[in-house]
Amino acid sequence: MTLETVSLTRSHGGTQGVYKHASAVTGTDMTFSVYVPESGAGASLPAVWYLSGLTCSHANVTEKGEYRRACAELGLIFVAPDTSPRGDAPDDPAGSYDLGLSAGFYVDASEAPWSKNYRMRSYVTSELPALIAAHFPVDVNRQSIMGHSMGGHGALTIGLRCPERFRAVSAFAPIVAPSQVPWGQKALGHYLGAKGDAWRRHDAVNLIEDGARLPELLVDQGEADVFLEEQLRPWLLQKACADAGIELTLRLQHGYDHSYYFISTFMAEHLRWHAQRLA
Amino acid sequence: MTLETVSLTRSHGGTQGVYKHASAVTGTDMTFSVYVPESGAGASLPAVWYLSGLTCSHANVTEKGEYRRACAELGLIFVAPDTSPRGDAPDDPAGSYDLGLSAGFYVDASEAPWSKNYRMRSYVTSELPALIAAHFPVDVNRQSIMGHSMGGHGALTIGLRCPERFRAVSAFAPIVAPSQVPWGQKALGHYLGAKGDAWRRHDAVNLIEDGARLPELLVDQGEADVFLEEQLRPWLLQKACADAGIELTLRLQHGYDHSYYFISTFMAEHLRWHAQRLA
Repeated sequence: MTLETVSLTRSHGGTQGVYKHASAVTGTDMTFSVYVPESGAGASLPAVWYLSGLTCSHANVTEKGEYRRACAELGLIFVAPDTSPRGDAPDDPAGSYDLGLSAGFYVDASEAPWSKNYRMRSYVTSELPALIAAHFPVDVNRQSIMGHSMGGHGALTIGLRCPERFRAVSAFAPIVAPSQVPWGQKALGHYLGAKGDAWRRHDAVNLIEDGARLPELLVDQGEADVFLEEQLRPWLLQKACADAGIELTLRLQHGYDHSYYFISTFMAEHLRWHAQRLA
Repeated sequence: MTLETVSLTRSHGGTQGVYKHASAVTGTDMTFSVYVPESGAGASLPAVWYLSGLTCSHANVTEKGEYRRACAELGLIFVAPDTSPRGDAPDDPAGSYDLGLSAGFYVDASEAPWSKNYRMRSYVTSELPALIAAHFPVDVNRQSIMGHSMGGHGALTIGLRCPERFRAVSAFAPIVAPSQVPWGQKALGHYLGAKGDAWRRHDAVNLIEDGARLPELLVDQGEADVFLEEQLRPWLLQKACADAGIELTLRLQHGYDHSYYFISTFMAEHLRWHAQRLA
């Protein structure tokens, strides 16, 4: 698997890289970023995966996430994949921001015209991890996952389905129950067909109801987030976790919205939380 | 002076604002950003001014500068003006990035077609400070200034000419001697006419040679900055400061380039240095 280096930039003592490769899974070129803190030869570092939200690529968190200082201090590699295939992959003919490009929802689509390229779950859980393990000084036994909004949905669902892979799972303003909210219903309907078992496997609340377990979860949610009531509804996750005995730390942050000004405020705390669990 | 609030976003416990106003000095609308950390009623906080570089607006440092955490910890207001007039202000007919829009060079232009609108020195040193003092909880006796590249030139020249106003001056990869480098020669020639006394008043090295004094300066410069040899030449500032007895801390940072990945790495250290001098 060859990797093309798009850019390498020194920052906070380490190296922020952006890379491109031809993905066999999505059938397109895929771009992602990796921050590697300064480390000695032969180092094997824990890695935090960050899944981004609607309209984003790897670039948003890379530029605005304010994660590098904490990753440098804590010795964490930070991996930021894209949110969908690009290039020749189909887009929503209606041009909406919440379906198609930048809106892969971290599922493997079963429906036309999406099924050929929109295989973000396999990409993020299989192909890209193998590439990262081959090219970066990652200790594959010490990985964790976080995400924002649609990427919070991705982190929760992937974390719940791969508890052996990810030692810690956290989210900023996640979509916790896509089957119950407009963003999720639209995306899952297009990618997976009519509501059914496939939806449940891509819905964090359903996964917990159906028996998936994690020891704990950390979620920050802005109280001034305009998507809170209609799309995010963290109380659904709260109830599911309470019923299942999952220790959820849900922090409603007064005055904060859905933007990277919110994410960057709490990024370092999340990374410290992850680092403790990756030690 | 009325101020239009473009956006107010909670971040790192304080408020990141973006504002717009009709500038009497430039004859255009001007946009700027101000971060105000959390503070009690009646607080009067020190303010750090940040002048941006070529191609930038207020937005680049606001999104990528990673200053909010340090400002929140240190109790600093952070003010980021734009780099030129916009709107109906003339641009370089040749469309180059280093003249006209985003390239005001912090001078009051004397030459057509620039002289009507390109009055960024008066804007940054008179009109905007009055506006900031009127609308934000700033202690006007505790202000300092920093900048990047063209904005480093702005911070150095303004700091050298207004030592009573700014208690601390620092820069990231500044243009230290515009009269001697292509970026500066082009801009000063267009804005101020043929090389002469007006150029010397907008050249940090010349100002020091001509007697301007500051007790100390802090400058960080990336060694891998592609503009180092041709446009920046910090050794010219080093010699001028040595000759003048100005205590310059010039740090050549191995492997760092000219980008916000470099600036954000050292931003918190600069802010701590400023805070000590604003205490």
